[in-house]
Amino acid sequence: MVKKVKAALIIIGDEILSGRTKDANLNHIALWLGRLGIILDEVRVIPDIGVRIIDTVNEVRRSFDYVFTTGGIGPTHDDITAENVAKAFGVPLLLNQEAKKLLEDNLGQGNLSKARLRMAMIPQGASLIKNPVSSAPGFMLGNVFVMAGIPIIMQSMLLDIEHRISGGSKIISKAVHVFEGESLFAEILSEVEDRFEHLSIGSYPFYKGGKYGASFVLRSPIEKDLDRALEDLKARIIERGSVFYDGEAL
Amino acid sequence: MVKKVKAALIIIGDEILSGRTKDANLNHIALWLGRLGIILDEVRVIPDIGVRIIDTVNEVRRSFDYVFTTGGIGPTHDDITAENVAKAFGVPLLLNQEAKKLLEDNLGQGNLSKARLRMAMIPQGASLIKNPVSSAPGFMLGNVFVMAGIPIIMQSMLLDIEHRISGGSKIISKAVHVFEGESLFAEILSEVEDRFEHLSIGSYPFYKGGKYGASFVLRSPIEKDLDRALEDLKARIIERGSVFYDGEAL
Repeated sequence: MVKKVKAALIIIGDEILSGRTKDANLNHIALWLGRLGIILDEVRVIPDIGVRIIDTVNEVRRSFDYVFTTGGIGPTHDDITAENVAKAFGVPLLLNQEAKKLLEDNLGQGNLSKARLRMAMIPQGASLIKNPVSSAPGFMLGNVFVMAGIPIIMQSMLLDIEHRISGGSKIISKAVHVFEGESLFAEILSEVEDRFEHLSIGSYPFYKGGKYGASFVLRSPIEKDLDRALEDLKARIIERGSVFYDGEAL
Repeated sequence: MVKKVKAALIIIGDEILSGRTKDANLNHIALWLGRLGIILDEVRVIPDIGVRIIDTVNEVRRSFDYVFTTGGIGPTHDDITAENVAKAFGVPLLLNQEAKKLLEDNLGQGNLSKARLRMAMIPQGASLIKNPVSSAPGFMLGNVFVMAGIPIIMQSMLLDIEHRISGGSKIISKAVHVFEGESLFAEILSEVEDRFEHLSIGSYPFYKGGKYGASFVLRSPIEKDLDRALEDLKARIIERGSVFYDGEAL
């Protein structure tokens, strides 16, 4: 039986929306979830505005199995994720002694300024997510995982999340490529896709080395179907007098 | 008077969500909108599923001045954006003679297969967006601009959109940088931000050349305020015995 587990990602940050910073987390999280058998089913990028964080978290945490957020958990005034996730859940934001100790151990006891203490303010009932890079933790509350926005820290936090989530059927993907316009294959792609219940075929045109072509990516949680579909597609490509190239990427 | 014009971007594509492809359009569109005085206020990445496209388009087109979509307007079975934008607006999808002629002129009259004709199926009442790269047009319907997902084509379509939209007050940004932890400046950032109505200050920690630091980015539509705020912030940085570095990026 095919079990689908779905996640949403909320990227919180004015700097992404203004174009000042290029997001580097979406792709990493997408691939990480894929390896765990979890489908990344929606991403939202929203500004550092309290009500937007509250509304978005509340909307997606009810629609998806897991929700991940990045950004806004540092020490400055524009780091407002923790307080608004607390509001979304209707719980108070409290000084977390465990988080305080992590910061003290890392920064030295005398160096815990008022600003830095903000990073130990965690919603009641949340469990911490370790940050081996710079100690200020993320947290998990319900099905929501709140992480830092800096890629190296975010990636280190994923290590402390993996054991808390369980994936569904892993989606396997295989690809073939052609050096002709994708429109020539539109009909056979559609015919092959229709033959298998959990199969999806994506057609992605490309321009490479001065030549146009297209990659056809077959995805299914059932490897047997995937292999049969791939053979079928290849046979149909040959049948229409075309040439295909194997491999995940060209 | 400060006039805010806000836009949302919908990125339609399984390949972004699966991690197979890295999105290259968000940042380009964010910077392009910024130059036009339009605030990119939300981005959503959604899969190639009809009902998701319909619901998302209908939700955001009512909340934002402009909506841009990328992806899903090619010739294959997984290109379902046009038909679902039509459904979102409750209008029929029709063979558009102008679009058909553009394709014929580019591909040659005999080469307009059934699959390629899909690219001339446009919602009733929409106006076309020119695609100088590969001729298959995007379209504008109400406040929604539907564009291709391939970056080079998407970028060429923006040229035919600029004259159809009008921006608000341009947001100007200026930055200073420090080579100390951002938490040390949390209080003064917050104090400076509070002094000006339309000013926002973002604090972005970085790690560069073996050193930690932070960029403080001041943004406002009122240049006079921005300059005063910048001077104020610099004075406060000096006052606390720290050193700042000028420049948009470090």
